[in-house]
Amino acid sequence: MEPIMDIAHLGHVEILTPKPEESLRFFTDVMGMTVSGRQGDSVYLRGWDDYERYSLQLTAAKTSGLGHAAFRCRSPQALERRVAALRAEGTEVWAHEGELGHGTGWRFRDPDGHVLELYYDTEWYAAPPERRPALKNQRERYPARGVNVRRLDHFNCLAVDVRACREFFERTLGFRCTERIELDNGVEVGMWLTATNKSYDMAYAREGNGVPGRLHHITFALDSREAILQAADTFLEAGVAIENGPHKHAIQQTFFLYVYEPGGNRVELAHAGARLILAPDWKTITWTEAERGKGQAWGLQMTESFRTYATPPLPEKT
Amino acid sequence: MEPIMDIAHLGHVEILTPKPEESLRFFTDVMGMTVSGRQGDSVYLRGWDDYERYSLQLTAAKTSGLGHAAFRCRSPQALERRVAALRAEGTEVWAHEGELGHGTGWRFRDPDGHVLELYYDTEWYAAPPERRPALKNQRERYPARGVNVRRLDHFNCLAVDVRACREFFERTLGFRCTERIELDNGVEVGMWLTATNKSYDMAYAREGNGVPGRLHHITFALDSREAILQAADTFLEAGVAIENGPHKHAIQQTFFLYVYEPGGNRVELAHAGARLILAPDWKTITWTEAERGKGQAWGLQMTESFRTYATPPLPEKT
Amino acid sequence: MEPIMDIAHLGHVEILTPKPEESLRFFTDVMGMTVSGRQGDSVYLRGWDDYERYSLQLTAAKTSGLGHAAFRCRSPQALERRVAALRAEGTEVWAHEGELGHGTGWRFRDPDGHVLELYYDTEWYAAPPERRPALKNQRERYPARGVNVRRLDHFNCLAVDVRACREFFERTLGFRCTERIELDNGVEVGMWLTATNKSYDMAYAREGNGVPGRLHHITFALDSREAILQAADTFLEAGVAIENGPHKHAIQQTFFLYVYEPGGNRVELAHAGARLILAPDWKTITWTEAERGKGQAWGLQMTESFRTYATPPLPEKT
Amino acid sequence: MEPIMDIAHLGHVEILTPKPEESLRFFTDVMGMTVSGRQGDSVYLRGWDDYERYSLQLTAAKTSGLGHAAFRCRSPQALERRVAALRAEGTEVWAHEGELGHGTGWRFRDPDGHVLELYYDTEWYAAPPERRPALKNQRERYPARGVNVRRLDHFNCLAVDVRACREFFERTLGFRCTERIELDNGVEVGMWLTATNKSYDMAYAREGNGVPGRLHHITFALDSREAILQAADTFLEAGVAIENGPHKHAIQQTFFLYVYEPGGNRVELAHAGARLILAPDWKTITWTEAERGKGQAWGLQMTESFRTYATPPLPEKT
Repeated sequence: MEPIMDIAHLGHVEILTPKPEESLRFFTDVMGMTVSGRQGDSVYLRGWDDYERYSLQLTAAKTSGLGHAAFRCRSPQALERRVAALRAEGTEVWAHEGELGHGTGWRFRDPDGHVLELYYDTEWYAAPPERRPALKNQRERYPARGVNVRRLDHFNCLAVDVRACREFFERTLGFRCTERIELDNGVEVGMWLTATNKSYDMAYAREGNGVPGRLHHITFALDSREAILQAADTFLEAGVAIENGPHKHAIQQTFFLYVYEPGGNRVELAHAGARLILAPDWKTITWTEAERGKGQAWGLQMTESFRTYATPPLPEKT
Repeated sequence: MEPIMDIAHLGHVEILTPKPEESLRFFTDVMGMTVSGRQGDSVYLRGWDDYERYSLQLTAAKTSGLGHAAFRCRSPQALERRVAALRAEGTEVWAHEGELGHGTGWRFRDPDGHVLELYYDTEWYAAPPERRPALKNQRERYPARGVNVRRLDHFNCLAVDVRACREFFERTLGFRCTERIELDNGVEVGMWLTATNKSYDMAYAREGNGVPGRLHHITFALDSREAILQAADTFLEAGVAIENGPHKHAIQQTFFLYVYEPGGNRVELAHAGARLILAPDWKTITWTEAERGKGQAWGLQMTESFRTYATPPLPEKT
Repeated sequence: MEPIMDIAHLGHVEILTPKPEESLRFFTDVMGMTVSGRQGDSVYLRGWDDYERYSLQLTAAKTSGLGHAAFRCRSPQALERRVAALRAEGTEVWAHEGELGHGTGWRFRDPDGHVLELYYDTEWYAAPPERRPALKNQRERYPARGVNVRRLDHFNCLAVDVRACREFFERTLGFRCTERIELDNGVEVGMWLTATNKSYDMAYAREGNGVPGRLHHITFALDSREAILQAADTFLEAGVAIENGPHKHAIQQTFFLYVYEPGGNRVELAHAGARLILAPDWKTITWTEAERGKGQAWGLQMTESFRTYATPPLPEKT
Repeated sequence: MEPIMDIAHLGHVEILTPKPEESLRFFTDVMGMTVSGRQGDSVYLRGWDDYERYSLQLTAAKTSGLGHAAFRCRSPQALERRVAALRAEGTEVWAHEGELGHGTGWRFRDPDGHVLELYYDTEWYAAPPERRPALKNQRERYPARGVNVRRLDHFNCLAVDVRACREFFERTLGFRCTERIELDNGVEVGMWLTATNKSYDMAYAREGNGVPGRLHHITFALDSREAILQAADTFLEAGVAIENGPHKHAIQQTFFLYVYEPGGNRVELAHAGARLILAPDWKTITWTEAERGKGQAWGLQMTESFRTYATPPLPEKT
């Protein structure tokens, strides 16, 4: 069977924040992103290399977590095919109109309840004069401010049934699984999916509390490992809580740094070096429980919070 | 019309060398590549992250230049479709059997006479025990030797008629042109084509001497700009002639370093940062003569040799 | 004879600018420096790791060039000894009072007429609350703005008689010459002097026009070569003219980038890696004309302007 | 009182290893050091930028630990003064003759029993033809092998009475304390001393087991943080046990990576960026127990082994 090539890339994610003003200052002043729109309770932001109008929708809400995540399809026909494939297996898909920056969003829920979206028509970002770049093959001026986020990279959700989610995305949207973790008892506790030459565009880890629909983190790409080290200092100076890193993941080998934005959502900065998945028939790497126990590439054991905390947070036990 | 997605990636290039032993020492000792096969007049080499058996075929010959360049297709059907498309417009395609590491190579000539190849079946590299990596999602051990070439990145040819070549690759193989140069007189003198999310997998520049079939350079990817700076010192110590760089290209924004291997072929090391072409409908950037005249991103003017030298070299005038 | 260890380090430089407002914006917005004082026609600035109140005095003037350069002595006694040594060989030394941030400055002219200063008492920088760093072993918060200049590194003057200047500084102040250039005809055309473990704190090159007292450039240190590459992009976006680099000097092996600030003075960013001069009896490296002709470490030939332009600029010929 | 400037720099350290062949392979193949001599039970090694014949003496022994550490004095007179100062307060100093590469070593014990050495006359390294560098201001060719250790940086011992050791080194040799840790109960548990512009040339931490004379680690300098990240991969591939890092120390802000060499001694790779102690009157930074509890700069908590393991190891309890 030939590979499905209908998803072009992750386009944007919407995260919810109970502290919208502080979150906005974090993403502009510390992360170095640009505001490119406002509508309703949302502010829209972008990294300097995102070609679309925005890659992050920040929405004021009562709690934190994922609003939705959206993939741009490769063509109008590709979009139609994927909507049809979703419906063919009984997934409800509804049209979401009026969102800033792109045409009709066709929304649906994954098996864990996260809201996802497919779209094709989009607005290319046009920088105002003061943010026009020196080189015409770039969308916006390098800001030289804060962390200098380049572009959205991926998002990572929790799911009660990771395997079901993986199979859903493979089957309906044509994602390929590059790496995964399977416990000795056969339970799948992690999976990384790609629709591009990046080694992952999304990832799911196991929700241990039985609560569906939660977000583990969203991730932005920087241009070098040195930039991530510089970012660690920028976070330190800005009083941003660093959770893990900088270090190198064993799985996917990404160089990473995890922090919390003021609204409570976990945010990752990542750099993949020159690593790409070029093989069209990449063979999924499956990590065992024992391999996973060795920690990250250079031995770091992640904090307990990395395994337990997600957004929205669980209600406190009484 | 929907995009053609049949080419998966550049698989390998064959370069000719009149000094096979010295060239081999360069690619192993200085570039840090591994020999993974020998057959006939050829030695086969690879970077530590190339997933196929090899990415470079080094062939002893009377002169230098390109032997052939080969693209892996996305599926057997994709391969059939591309061969059919080439033949449909009258291009001769012939089966090349018996090459190390992959199935039948379907070869043809581009409008400038360079030999290209399409294939699908391939041999995944299996590292011998002493070169097995610590992390199972990697094909081979990081060598910590010389320049530590990660993987083949792209190749760059000269062509008498650049435009004709571009249109040929777009039409028959579905390559997309991300950037190009057009002189004020309308002549196209450079073009960069991609079949992946890399911003280019191949590029052609104008041959000013009317001699078809020449090679400008082949390029390998390193993991950071710092690694390219370290490579510059490694080349300096090894007596390898540095031609241009390290510096940043204005076109494509690649960080680059150009040297000559002992056989006379130009070799580039490159790092793209986190730059990817994610837009499925990327709008080709066209650079004008005036813009091109400004030099590279930070102002470097390339050496005269960069515009005039290619392999095989021109016969000396008498 | 035992080495003289009386000069502790370069403390600050004063540069003149005919465009004080634009120069100030350059040093704050682009270079990422902080204003830490104003007095008369001068604004005082600092990098985030300079421990004294300031390292750069920017003075409005009719033209560009060096105001003065000041070295902090190791102790009050060391200061007395050096003033005495200068006077002992007939150099006029005068007390300069009332300058911001330090005690009496003992000023004198080098054989080429540049004004230099020695002092001991100094004001340690105390960051206001909003610029206090997270780590108490740092003077000021890492700004994450523009180029993020860390500290002043050295200055470079032109001199009609380079040898005379070198011998003057060696004899009176105890500077050691780490590297120098001598032409085949015996003329010394460049020299690098240190009073610390840095491989140079000041350098002089030959003035070819017979005009004394000119400045070639002042230099600030960044923390990595990657930071200098990032700075090149920051300059590109800000419209700052890049003159040479980024590249690696053959002499001293410093990784460098030269630009012009709006007032016309040349400014260098530099990173030395882990290179230090630890040997107390370092043997001066003398470069020949032929060696110098090979260009910089990786082959770059500096622009013509690098050899001809200094500040204040020469009057235009009529 | 004027500062004593008689110690020029740390010259070499001798470490003991019960596995001399494996240790040697580690320092040559993995660390990228060069063998520059053999004598008795010792092999002498150097990084490519060490100007003296060697910086590491590796001595076969029954157990691990520090043989001795040696400081080069600034002049013959400086050496005499320091020997006199040691003797003046009752410290036994004996002449050690016949060591490779330098003149008489004047040896003594610090209050914790570690053997230290002062010397002046030394042999400058002369590279054999195959290791001669391309640039004449460098002692040896950049090896492009393994970790590419540049030079020895510092050593770190344990001491039962840290304060006594600090005061001993300040008083007799003129070291300056740049940073220290003092518990709430007034006990000094860590101190960093310098005789140069490096922020430390040696450091002592508290020995919690009452056993004198142990070594915590020796440290080599690399040229960039990226080089240390690359080294982490090199160690991973070579099966070298990584203990802590890469990360940034809060104290001294050094970017670090700790591993164990086969003989059991802890070895650190470090990069200080452009950080130097230029102030001749640097005010010692004292860290409190609470500040220390926050972990390293970006939050890493060191492994338990970092606080408990040193060489030679303690006898196992029965």
